[in-house]
Amino acid sequence: MIKVAVLGYGNIGRAAEQAILASPDMELAGIFHHNDCLDAIRADVVLLCTPTREVQKFAAVLAARGICTVDSFDIHGQIWSLRSALEPVCVANKAVSIISSGWDPGTDSIVRALLMAMAPKGLTYTNFGPGRSMGHTVAAKAIKGVKNALSMTIPLGTGIHRRMVYIELEEGADFKTVEAAILADDYFAHDETHVIAVDSVDALNNVAHGVNLVRNGVSGDTHNQRFEFNMTINNPALTGQVMVSAARAAYRMKGRGEYGAKTMIELRPIDMLPGDTEQLVKALV
Amino acid sequence: MIKVAVLGYGNIGRAAEQAILASPDMELAGIFHHNDCLDAIRADVVLLCTPTREVQKFAAVLAARGICTVDSFDIHGQIWSLRSALEPVCVANKAVSIISSGWDPGTDSIVRALLMAMAPKGLTYTNFGPGRSMGHTVAAKAIKGVKNALSMTIPLGTGIHRRMVYIELEEGADFKTVEAAILADDYFAHDETHVIAVDSVDALNNVAHGVNLVRNGVSGDTHNQRFEFNMTINNPALTGQVMVSAARAAYRMKGRGEYGAKTMIELRPIDMLPGDTEQLVKALV
Repeated sequence: MIKVAVLGYGNIGRAAEQAILASPDMELAGIFHHNDCLDAIRADVVLLCTPTREVQKFAAVLAARGICTVDSFDIHGQIWSLRSALEPVCVANKAVSIISSGWDPGTDSIVRALLMAMAPKGLTYTNFGPGRSMGHTVAAKAIKGVKNALSMTIPLGTGIHRRMVYIELEEGADFKTVEAAILADDYFAHDETHVIAVDSVDALNNVAHGVNLVRNGVSGDTHNQRFEFNMTINNPALTGQVMVSAARAAYRMKGRGEYGAKTMIELRPIDMLPGDTEQLVKALV
Repeated sequence: MIKVAVLGYGNIGRAAEQAILASPDMELAGIFHHNDCLDAIRADVVLLCTPTREVQKFAAVLAARGICTVDSFDIHGQIWSLRSALEPVCVANKAVSIISSGWDPGTDSIVRALLMAMAPKGLTYTNFGPGRSMGHTVAAKAIKGVKNALSMTIPLGTGIHRRMVYIELEEGADFKTVEAAILADDYFAHDETHVIAVDSVDALNNVAHGVNLVRNGVSGDTHNQRFEFNMTINNPALTGQVMVSAARAAYRMKGRGEYGAKTMIELRPIDMLPGDTEQLVKALV
């Protein structure tokens, strides 16, 4: 049994716990809060379900003790820097760190890589939603006069998105003033954005999300090869599950001496699945 | 530059040649017919574009010389047996053989594995078509009274398919007799099948194909996670391109000393793409 611990117990941590309990080859090695002392952790793999900006610190501390980690670090522009920081620590201490293992970055990254292998020239568009954008929601909440907010991402195709921003106003705040401030914010200024006042943001709460990823490309010299990947999912449940599947890959890679920090496109898909090679090849190939 | 040769020069061999020529990091190391003497081949990787039943023989001979091979062996029930036969030859002679590297088996297998990692419980259906089934076309052509035939696979969902069989009758053949023989054939007896007499099968010829692969599954304990992968493609062009991308992976695996016979779910997706890790992670993850 692979011993998997959870660090951080928000939406993702809870979902990860459920995915560990549902895995035939894993046991839960404890749930830790992100201000606990990490020395108490005894596990083969630790799932870092902390805020994304705390991932590097925790991964480095655990890797230094030879413990594998998995995170769903989601700042696209900083993934290479995270990988570069963790790689030498992992190699020196015989650990594996699987980074950015959610659905985007994560499983969508695998689909994008696969479609590039199938049709090397062409355009891929990743269309997100409908679903809540955490980053835009936090940005809207930070605007003066906003008591609570929810920013929904609506896909318009070709990677263009509409932002539907539902807000609860603070007592005495002026809607027009707040709306203007949201529309001027850098998070919203570049997209079609609609601001709507509601009585209760909580009443709209829904962790559903979706992706429509399309590629029209060229295989060899043959054009118009068309591919599409769609999903509609519970966001934390999928993220937690993907982290757990990546934990299995980390454990196996460590067992083979393949130390280092890796993104999901650097994993063998079979390593994420329980069972032996013969079973999996017969069932899936 | 990776030296890639093509063995067999039918539809797939021609498409593979185009994909090699379009690859920035490859050069064509020759095209060989399947009755040529294999001793003349000088290449890092040989693409086996021969009939599927000849794959094992050629792969074994080349692996024994330490030359990597890629095939698109497509008899699902015999893939494990092919892998088992080639694995020891590859390991003993420091070669890599990537088997069943088309789109199904092949890239669809990767999608199926990925969806299992995302939602371990649930049902996946692979729906094929519309497109020509080679196996069913050959079976229809073998029926007495059939001069030429084309069997189209039409997806009806949940993995159920309709067979549309277009036939040119031989001089003096009776349509009703031929139709009854086709419907009774084991290839057609289990599916909804329609037989249609046409003046020219050649006039219907089209290498387009498609896939609709769906999974509704459970992540952790969260149900109704829905996924769908669709493609409409030129069949030989995609097969040739996937083989060429797999050839790149074979070359890199050999370079790292990872010898053996592997299916596509056992490859790192990044190994199929030209460019270095930093470029690819930044562009795709």
